[in-house]
Amino acid sequence: MRHSLALAASAAFSLFALSSAARADEGMWTFDAFPAEQMRAGYGWAPDQAWLDKVRASAVRLTGGCSASFVSDAGLILTNHHCVVSCLQDLSTGSSDLVANGFTAAARNAERKCPGQQAEVVTAISDVTNDVQRAIGNATGEAAVKARDARIAEIEKAGCADTARTRCQVVRLYGGGQYKLYTYRKYDDVRIAWAPEFAAAFFGGDPDNFNFPRYALDAAFLRAYENGRPVASPSHLKWNPRAPVDGEATFVVGNPGSTQRLLTQDQLAFQREVALPITLATYSELRGRLLSAMAQTPEKAREGADALFGVENSLKVFIGRVKALNDPAFTAKLAAAEADLKQRSAGNAALGNPWAEIAQAVSAYRDIYVPYRFITPQSDLYGYAEALVRAAEERTKPNGERLPGYTDSALPLLEKQVLDAKPITPWLEELTLGWSLSKAREYLGADDPQTRLMLGRDSPEGLAKQLVSGTRLADPAYRKQLWDGGAAAIAASNDPMIQYARRLDARDRELTRLFNERYDAPVTAAQARLATARFGAYGATVYPDATFTLRISYGKVAGWTERGQQVPTRTTLGGAFERATGADPFKLPAAFAGNEARIDKATTYDFVTTNDIIGGNSGSPVIDSAGTVIGAAFDGNIHSLGGNYGYDANLNRTVVVSTAAVQEALETIYPAPALVAELKGKRR
Amino acid sequence: MRHSLALAASAAFSLFALSSAARADEGMWTFDAFPAEQMRAGYGWAPDQAWLDKVRASAVRLTGGCSASFVSDAGLILTNHHCVVSCLQDLSTGSSDLVANGFTAAARNAERKCPGQQAEVVTAISDVTNDVQRAIGNATGEAAVKARDARIAEIEKAGCADTARTRCQVVRLYGGGQYKLYTYRKYDDVRIAWAPEFAAAFFGGDPDNFNFPRYALDAAFLRAYENGRPVASPSHLKWNPRAPVDGEATFVVGNPGSTQRLLTQDQLAFQREVALPITLATYSELRGRLLSAMAQTPEKAREGADALFGVENSLKVFIGRVKALNDPAFTAKLAAAEADLKQRSAGNAALGNPWAEIAQAVSAYRDIYVPYRFITPQSDLYGYAEALVRAAEERTKPNGERLPGYTDSALPLLEKQVLDAKPITPWLEELTLGWSLSKAREYLGADDPQTRLMLGRDSPEGLAKQLVSGTRLADPAYRKQLWDGGAAAIAASNDPMIQYARRLDARDRELTRLFNERYDAPVTAAQARLATARFGAYGATVYPDATFTLRISYGKVAGWTERGQQVPTRTTLGGAFERATGADPFKLPAAFAGNEARIDKATTYDFVTTNDIIGGNSGSPVIDSAGTVIGAAFDGNIHSLGGNYGYDANLNRTVVVSTAAVQEALETIYPAPALVAELKGKRR
Repeated sequence: MRHSLALAASAAFSLFALSSAARADEGMWTFDAFPAEQMRAGYGWAPDQAWLDKVRASAVRLTGGCSASFVSDAGLILTNHHCVVSCLQDLSTGSSDLVANGFTAAARNAERKCPGQQAEVVTAISDVTNDVQRAIGNATGEAAVKARDARIAEIEKAGCADTARTRCQVVRLYGGGQYKLYTYRKYDDVRIAWAPEFAAAFFGGDPDNFNFPRYALDAAFLRAYENGRPVASPSHLKWNPRAPVDGEATFVVGNPGSTQRLLTQDQLAFQREVALPITLATYSELRGRLLSAMAQTPEKAREGADALFGVENSLKVFIGRVKALNDPAFTAKLAAAEADLKQRSAGNAALGNPWAEIAQAVSAYRDIYVPYRFITPQSDLYGYAEALVRAAEERTKPNGERLPGYTDSALPLLEKQVLDAKPITPWLEELTLGWSLSKAREYLGADDPQTRLMLGRDSPEGLAKQLVSGTRLADPAYRKQLWDGGAAAIAASNDPMIQYARRLDARDRELTRLFNERYDAPVTAAQARLATARFGAYGATVYPDATFTLRISYGKVAGWTERGQQVPTRTTLGGAFERATGADPFKLPAAFAGNEARIDKATTYDFVTTNDIIGGNSGSPVIDSAGTVIGAAFDGNIHSLGGNYGYDANLNRTVVVSTAAVQEALETIYPAPALVAELKGKRR
Repeated sequence: MRHSLALAASAAFSLFALSSAARADEGMWTFDAFPAEQMRAGYGWAPDQAWLDKVRASAVRLTGGCSASFVSDAGLILTNHHCVVSCLQDLSTGSSDLVANGFTAAARNAERKCPGQQAEVVTAISDVTNDVQRAIGNATGEAAVKARDARIAEIEKAGCADTARTRCQVVRLYGGGQYKLYTYRKYDDVRIAWAPEFAAAFFGGDPDNFNFPRYALDAAFLRAYENGRPVASPSHLKWNPRAPVDGEATFVVGNPGSTQRLLTQDQLAFQREVALPITLATYSELRGRLLSAMAQTPEKAREGADALFGVENSLKVFIGRVKALNDPAFTAKLAAAEADLKQRSAGNAALGNPWAEIAQAVSAYRDIYVPYRFITPQSDLYGYAEALVRAAEERTKPNGERLPGYTDSALPLLEKQVLDAKPITPWLEELTLGWSLSKAREYLGADDPQTRLMLGRDSPEGLAKQLVSGTRLADPAYRKQLWDGGAAAIAASNDPMIQYARRLDARDRELTRLFNERYDAPVTAAQARLATARFGAYGATVYPDATFTLRISYGKVAGWTERGQQVPTRTTLGGAFERATGADPFKLPAAFAGNEARIDKATTYDFVTTNDIIGGNSGSPVIDSAGTVIGAAFDGNIHSLGGNYGYDANLNRTVVVSTAAVQEALETIYPAPALVAELKGKRR
């Protein structure tokens, strides 16, 4: 299940380091290192530990790749619509389109389970850096990676004996400078309670995505269940359906997926020169393939919508990164930051030359990048096959010797993702599989041994058709049979997709080994020393790159200046009526049109803040200084797309759907009186 | 008809300048400046003037964007299959697929006219540099461009009074350092005589494109007609169906379309940072849209084939350019060349600072590039509309005041292209138009005034559907009525595509004016001085960038070394049988399979030479020192894709289909005994 779009499919955002030290509102801080002093210097106030603890206990990670928060004592979860659209699609049929029409559960027992979704709340964070580094010792290359991963697997297993209710995860921060054990309370039954029409949630579509002013009701409610009942969530944020105040302090609490702000110049060059051009071309082609296929029938348009959204959203992120890394002013700042650290670290003999070591690793990576990138075909069915084949083999090994995604601590979620019932759309599977095989051949070359391994004498599209039409893996019962049957069942299976995953497995493992040996191990070792150098140079003002673990960013409600013009801080519900054209994606949602007379058009709809976030933060609660929730972050502005590499406080903005607009929607547009009462804290 | 794929759709190739002076086999030389001394130094021999004159008189330019040569005294023309595939497609129907099945005219009177195609032979070249530069005088900006274009229009008109049989074209060389008047004998009735199956011509398809070893019969024969009869072509190349000899000298004579080897560092940065990423993303998406649409029915697969080939071929070229400009070793050489010229020109007061002037022009261009790039929607029908609307207006003006494509010397070919009957495929028109409007909105932004001008309140796909289904421009009679009716007919037309072209025209003209004023004029002025500096520094070893005018390159038959392994010089017909897999695009062509026993498998199929060529050279005769033709250039190897910017003699190769293979095909695979006799010089 590698290369999922889930994270990239959420919004992507940013701050800009003049040096590696955080400035202004920059930073995605861990909860055990909130920069209270720094915030107080800028804002005259900062939250205390009680405030931080309460907020942390209310914050939810969704394993689909989003963030969220508890907003009632009965497990009610606020997140973005775009974080639940795949659930809505999975639950839709030809005659019941929950994406197009939205969904309001008539009562709690009508809330419907989202396949594969799991909600997680951090309960503890502890430092295991010494433990892991001791295990690595003086090992290098593949041995270092194995020693590290083995120790991590043991720490995780030891930390969470109750795998039904808890999950342990060791997180590598600062590229290897710190290791922290995060313990989560987990809820593996998550149901959809409320979602508006797609046309309201994604008004403006791809053209407006990452832009502002914005008129999108990108909000939805889920609920966590356990043993068939809503969970109690005494730690939750108070719902506060008010308009934001210009300049007021805001906090975004969520799980930013990935940033690359600590990359060296050589790593950035690799991104610009090698990785991004391939991503740009291949994802653009996939977008085109989807658009034409979906134009064929309304049914296909419905079935492909979520995949297209994911691809277009990712693509916009990647286009923004390409632009950032081709902007000389932007890259000059990144170069200056590296030069500054080098200068401040001069004479530090213990540091060695991590930049040179990384340069060498990058050079080695260039040689294996294309085969490594393309060895894993893209399709849900192939993902099932790969997980089943690997799980069968890995589970026969001791915990510490397994691949990272197959350790005892990782298996429960993997098992859930493999076994949860979820509709499969064959044409979509064929399309993505055919596309990825075709791109593998294109970049590897027709005569490359890996191409021959992947295609044999078939064409990419022909092989995709054979595999998708021949496999039984769309059937959850068959997947369960193979999961339970283990290695013997896999070996005996005549399923063509299983056999295909077995055919690729050795090469995939070999490439992973090469990647570990030549890139991951030396880079981890060098980054660990670079982290020490950064702390030495800049003290506690250094935050780690995002890792899809819980972070908090502080900022304020503020617009920005675009080509000399001030961009407003907020929009109103009335603005959507003015902006509508009648043609998708600017078509007024049916419920907006039908309820126009009753809607309070002055209600704040979306607004912007200076908070530093990125993809994975989608659905994060936006919290005021009182600790109440005033919105859900769902996007960044166009400038934020370079945020993967750096943040510019003047330009980068988080885009938020206000609780005021959600409240208005719950009351007059997509009425859900029970939810309104629950959000007000009234007992049922 | 701007932005045609015609040129880019032919092969793209290269040499590598260590300085701006040509080395080794680098250079696409004009016939009035062949570097005989330089070639003699490397090869011990060089052609004399008589040799050059004869070859020049045999060389043919095809206005569709390719090169070719006369190979009999009865107007028979050798070119590539991929240069006639659009003709074959235009002549095909659901029941008669000339692309898939190939075409052999049973007799001359069965040869069929190719819509829009014209053949041209250079008859004179004269220097008009002083004339044009005098007209420009001290003018700058828009005024300089107008003065230049007006003088060019007059020179062309005065040079070719007989517009039915001749065409005059002033060519700007060295970016404005030289202006030459090329006079052509033209033949506007060109017919297809012979073409093999697509599966033979394009064996290996996109995966093998720009690669070697190669097994492609990328050859075809056309014939020039006048007054309904084949023309006499006493000047033609002798057909020589022999295998090439390793190391022998070869000449490629044709019309390389465009190179950018004299770009300054700022211009290269603009390509890498701005233009190429947009091209990469948008063309990749178009490729995907085409692939999915074509997968729907065999009919659509047939109808879209030529468009897909054009897009995939262009895309591979662009991907190669992206790679070249992101290759630090490659770009370092380009930077060194500029530094060398700067150093050698130091103290030259007359030079001024052309690099700084170009830097400023590039900076201005960055601001208008996106609107200028996207103002012209992509579709054949829109192309007709634009040409009709503009011709109607421009023809009311004096010759010297018209837009360049609408002068008296340019109108005859434009009229032919607009009025020739040619099938229109509505779904393909809708697809490309919808795509280009969608990309305009994406890059301009949904709220940009130009987006509103282009879309109004419609969606890109909705507008495309309206315009394509509503227009009558697919009917040549209606186009003729509008062409003949001029401005009054255009003003009175209620055709939606005509009205749409009128809606965009003012903005398009304004952007062209801004481009001329801010970029073209200052860059032309600066490049003229840079050309003088180059001649001063490197003498006559400097060749101009390609301009889709006649050039000659010298080189030799030679393989190259790829990751330590020697790539062979040639393939044989037998190799195609070994390489075939049964799956497209590696499926053995039916006629190959059917005639396997009779085919001489030892026959040389394709081979490589060191000649320096680029897109537009497709179909160029490959000539030996005796002046006989031994092949037709149809591609470059993968290294040649950086050839737009520079040539590396160690790596860049031209890929050629041998006359030996074509002869074998004419005799045993796609039998055409009359052509065989004609090529042998036998009278009919």
